Amino acid sequence: MQSDSQPAHWLASFHDALVARDKARLQDLFLDECYWRDFLAFTWNIVTLEGRAPIWEMLLARLDEVKPEQWQIESVDAPGDVVGAWFSFETAVGRGKGHLRLKDGRCWTFFTTLRELKGHEEKRGPTRIAGAQHGVVRGRRVWLDGRNDDKAELGISRQPYCLIVGGGQGGLALAARLKQLDVPTLIVDALPRPGDGWRRRYRSLCLHDPVWYDHMPYLPFPDNWPVYTPKDKMGDWLEAYASIMELDIWNATRCTHAAFDDATKRWTVEVERDGQTITLQPMQLVLATGMAGVPNRPLLKGQDRFRGIQHHSSEHKDGAPYAGKRCVIVGANNSAHDIAADLWENGAASVTMIQRSPTLVVKSSALERHGRPLYSEAAVAAGIDADRADLIAASIPYRILPQFANPTVARIRRDDADFYERLGATGFMLTFGEDESGIGLMYPRRGAGYYIDVGASDLIIDGRIAVKSGVEIDHLAENAVVMADGTTLPADLIVYATGYGPMNDWAAQLISPAVAEKVGPCWGLGSGTAKDSGPWEGELRNMWKPTRQEALWFQGGNLQQARHFSLYTALQIKARMEGVPTPVYRTG
Amino acid sequence: MQSDSQPAHWLASFHDALVARDKARLQDLFLDECYWRDFLAFTWNIVTLEGRAPIWEMLLARLDEVKPEQWQIESVDAPGDVVGAWFSFETAVGRGKGHLRLKDGRCWTFFTTLRELKGHEEKRGPTRIAGAQHGVVRGRRVWLDGRNDDKAELGISRQPYCLIVGGGQGGLALAARLKQLDVPTLIVDALPRPGDGWRRRYRSLCLHDPVWYDHMPYLPFPDNWPVYTPKDKMGDWLEAYASIMELDIWNATRCTHAAFDDATKRWTVEVERDGQTITLQPMQLVLATGMAGVPNRPLLKGQDRFRGIQHHSSEHKDGAPYAGKRCVIVGANNSAHDIAADLWENGAASVTMIQRSPTLVVKSSALERHGRPLYSEAAVAAGIDADRADLIAASIPYRILPQFANPTVARIRRDDADFYERLGATGFMLTFGEDESGIGLMYPRRGAGYYIDVGASDLIIDGRIAVKSGVEIDHLAENAVVMADGTTLPADLIVYATGYGPMNDWAAQLISPAVAEKVGPCWGLGSGTAKDSGPWEGELRNMWKPTRQEALWFQGGNLQQARHFSLYTALQIKARMEGVPTPVYRTG
Repeated sequence: MQSDSQPAHWLASFHDALVARDKARLQDLFLDECYWRDFLAFTWNIVTLEGRAPIWEMLLARLDEVKPEQWQIESVDAPGDVVGAWFSFETAVGRGKGHLRLKDGRCWTFFTTLRELKGHEEKRGPTRIAGAQHGVVRGRRVWLDGRNDDKAELGISRQPYCLIVGGGQGGLALAARLKQLDVPTLIVDALPRPGDGWRRRYRSLCLHDPVWYDHMPYLPFPDNWPVYTPKDKMGDWLEAYASIMELDIWNATRCTHAAFDDATKRWTVEVERDGQTITLQPMQLVLATGMAGVPNRPLLKGQDRFRGIQHHSSEHKDGAPYAGKRCVIVGANNSAHDIAADLWENGAASVTMIQRSPTLVVKSSALERHGRPLYSEAAVAAGIDADRADLIAASIPYRILPQFANPTVARIRRDDADFYERLGATGFMLTFGEDESGIGLMYPRRGAGYYIDVGASDLIIDGRIAVKSGVEIDHLAENAVVMADGTTLPADLIVYATGYGPMNDWAAQLISPAVAEKVGPCWGLGSGTAKDSGPWEGELRNMWKPTRQEALWFQGGNLQQARHFSLYTALQIKARMEGVPTPVYRTG
Repeated sequence: MQSDSQPAHWLASFHDALVARDKARLQDLFLDECYWRDFLAFTWNIVTLEGRAPIWEMLLARLDEVKPEQWQIESVDAPGDVVGAWFSFETAVGRGKGHLRLKDGRCWTFFTTLRELKGHEEKRGPTRIAGAQHGVVRGRRVWLDGRNDDKAELGISRQPYCLIVGGGQGGLALAARLKQLDVPTLIVDALPRPGDGWRRRYRSLCLHDPVWYDHMPYLPFPDNWPVYTPKDKMGDWLEAYASIMELDIWNATRCTHAAFDDATKRWTVEVERDGQTITLQPMQLVLATGMAGVPNRPLLKGQDRFRGIQHHSSEHKDGAPYAGKRCVIVGANNSAHDIAADLWENGAASVTMIQRSPTLVVKSSALERHGRPLYSEAAVAAGIDADRADLIAASIPYRILPQFANPTVARIRRDDADFYERLGATGFMLTFGEDESGIGLMYPRRGAGYYIDVGASDLIIDGRIAVKSGVEIDHLAENAVVMADGTTLPADLIVYATGYGPMNDWAAQLISPAVAEKVGPCWGLGSGTAKDSGPWEGELRNMWKPTRQEALWFQGGNLQQARHFSLYTALQIKARMEGVPTPVYRTG
């Protein structure tokens, strides 16, 4: 059979088997090793079903209600051993897109996503709103009246359906999607202006991901945008974005407590605004406070005696005040490196990094060459926009992602062998992931543990940044960090680049430890590798999908995730607002 | 000959004839009736050469320096009696695009545009800047430092190369282009915030042009943008645009005087900012104060005696205060209609429009259906983006534009015959342009004289807005407008929707009447139709091109013009900054 007609034949047989509820025929269409990744369309959840039995079990539970139909191949991928294709389909309540990969005519990976709800389609392109209300209308209300009403009323005399805590990219992207779906939404954020989350970071920060990866929903960066956005420019962009998307945000507003009432199905959320306590009563609560929880501040003996300055990396702004100072940085990931380089650039007398565990280091240039072909100028030229790239990336289940990642890691290690050898020779401990799967897996597994090298590694290789590895800190003296092996590192400044607690710290703080415990950990795949303990989950835990706490959602991650997954969070919230049934199918 | 190989053959012969300076052969390639429209590429001017002799004359004058080469067909238009094609070419100093139309193998229209200067290409897409400065740099300066420097220094300790007076769409679009070309540019604008030019207009205003027509350079509206942008939303968009494009603007700054020094080739420009007079010394001065000059306030007998409120349409904000009041509007164009409808909607006791000359009325829906196929969702679907649409539109010289416009006007008159009949029956005087060429020509000829109907015409038809036509105002009484025929129109409010003076009023006010006179009128084609007296010019006078005053430029018009022509103004200014020779070829 021609490989480009294979997917259509397979899809037709698949449809027939579904209609007939024919288990044998259906299972015959899948390989022994097979995966079905579903974003909402079948499960109102984000799950990967691994193997024929779990797939059949899900179908048995969900087919009667989902009523999938109109399966249609949209395009067939470039030919290869594996035959891939994109398809569209409909369910009882929505329209979806998906991807399949066939090996020898049988399905290896199957991917289904819900893209829109029937009757609640977004108004875009040909269906965009008029804006002007033509004709004559006594007592006409204009656009500005509506915006002013929202500003005056939402959260005061009118309750938002959805409250988002946190106005970084995650909160803004979700709010933009919800706005587009006519879901009354309010964002509260502790900082004074949209974008301040980026602005207040350390001075030298630029995005570590390139522009093609970082587009927000609806409004892509213009093509004169720099590859790596400086943090203040990113702040300005998000502020402009919030204005353009007409988002309702209460800045300088701190969320202090939230509780869900099982009887009324409403949240009661207290926020402090302009010195006043205001109680909000949304139906849905989204924690978009970042994938990082509260800063990890290690407790060390002698911290009270230390006479210099010590602060967490999140409080570190600028290396300039530390010219001529002896600086110690605890930690060896992205922020630690950026801060170390900034201190060196600003003329610190000495800069020492204390590395507690191996770091995955990859040169930014290597990532640009090999790491993200889907997000590149070449992809743009090939007609792959951010949305298509996101779907392609998501079409590969996490379980098999390492085998896609391994060759890239091997290639980078080969290309940059000399670099890695010289870096390792300094005593710096390197890792490429336990299964050599690189940063692409390190990030979902633990959201940390890496440095995308933009220059600091050379400073380490040259000895201009010293590294102390594999030794614990024993205590702080008045002017030094004293290591367990007796080494004394003289210090005027200690920066704790020791990362952040887990995301559901926020749930514990804002709601209650009991709810945080019920929800369980956020992020991580359960891969059983360092700092990502099992059991295997196969998807990021609790992210963008229903949690064990009704009406509580977590939004977080990088810009690509903010863009892509905000669609699914928004569709889930919209469906609940509209009373579309959303029975959640859970695995395990 | 196959029609799709014809353009390539023609272009090859054309090139040969140019190289050989072969007048006979060259003239043989063009029809008797032929046009060459050039945007900078050959003439460093915006001109249309009409006929073989003027074309040959221009070539004789310019070929040695322009050195055109690399003529290459890029695409051939859909087949028809006229064979059209797009091509690219190079000159000694730049790269261009163009379009040709052949009839029976000979050229009817030829269009050449300079798109970029060699060695000064814009950094976009694959050539965009890095943003982050990778590697380590002692004393590193980050993006924010640069922006803060510009804010602190430009116009104070460092002179802008280009000063733009006016921060509406024209000024912002040009500044964005100049920024992209590394031309130090400062905008001064009298209003407090970018976008205020739109915000302070009357309450009910929405753009009369649809979204596809209105994109700014670099950053198109997202596809959820409304068709007709409400004025305050437009204000917010322009404010966000100015931030995103990193434009340097002094708001709340009034330009009071400008003078050019022929010896130093610099302008001396005085501005009032924060109560201080600051003197700026740019090399180039752009008046982007809008295509409207100062408001036309008619002088009427009895104006001092009138006891009600009288103001110009530019000062009219909102109809609400005039509920129950008797309102007279002098004028019958866009603003007059919008204000009349707003007053009626707000419950005015009576609304009367005084029409002094015929008005071109076209329903917004008719324009959407027939008027601008290049700027529509269908065009987007066909891959015609705003830039391509602009080039297509510009490829038709003004002289023959009426013959392209006539069928559309006829179609609209047929479709809306009943509407026009009923409107005419009220005594409202209608025109479709003296040569039935509709709004598409009315706009470049006089920039006024029309109403794009979004509802007010129905109020006139129903008699809810009264019209007094064809009679002059004799004088104002204490509480009425008294017409020459003796009619008395009782009035508590008189709005003078009487338009604006010519654009070079600004030159007279800011520079001197002598310079304004030297420059001559702006806008208008010299069509010899009402309010556009000859001689025939064939292009908009003084717009976006060199004027008779060295280093003085006019930027103005609607959003489409701001987008498209800002490119040419920017290239002309950049070329002058870089010392690229720019001899201006003038016709007539």
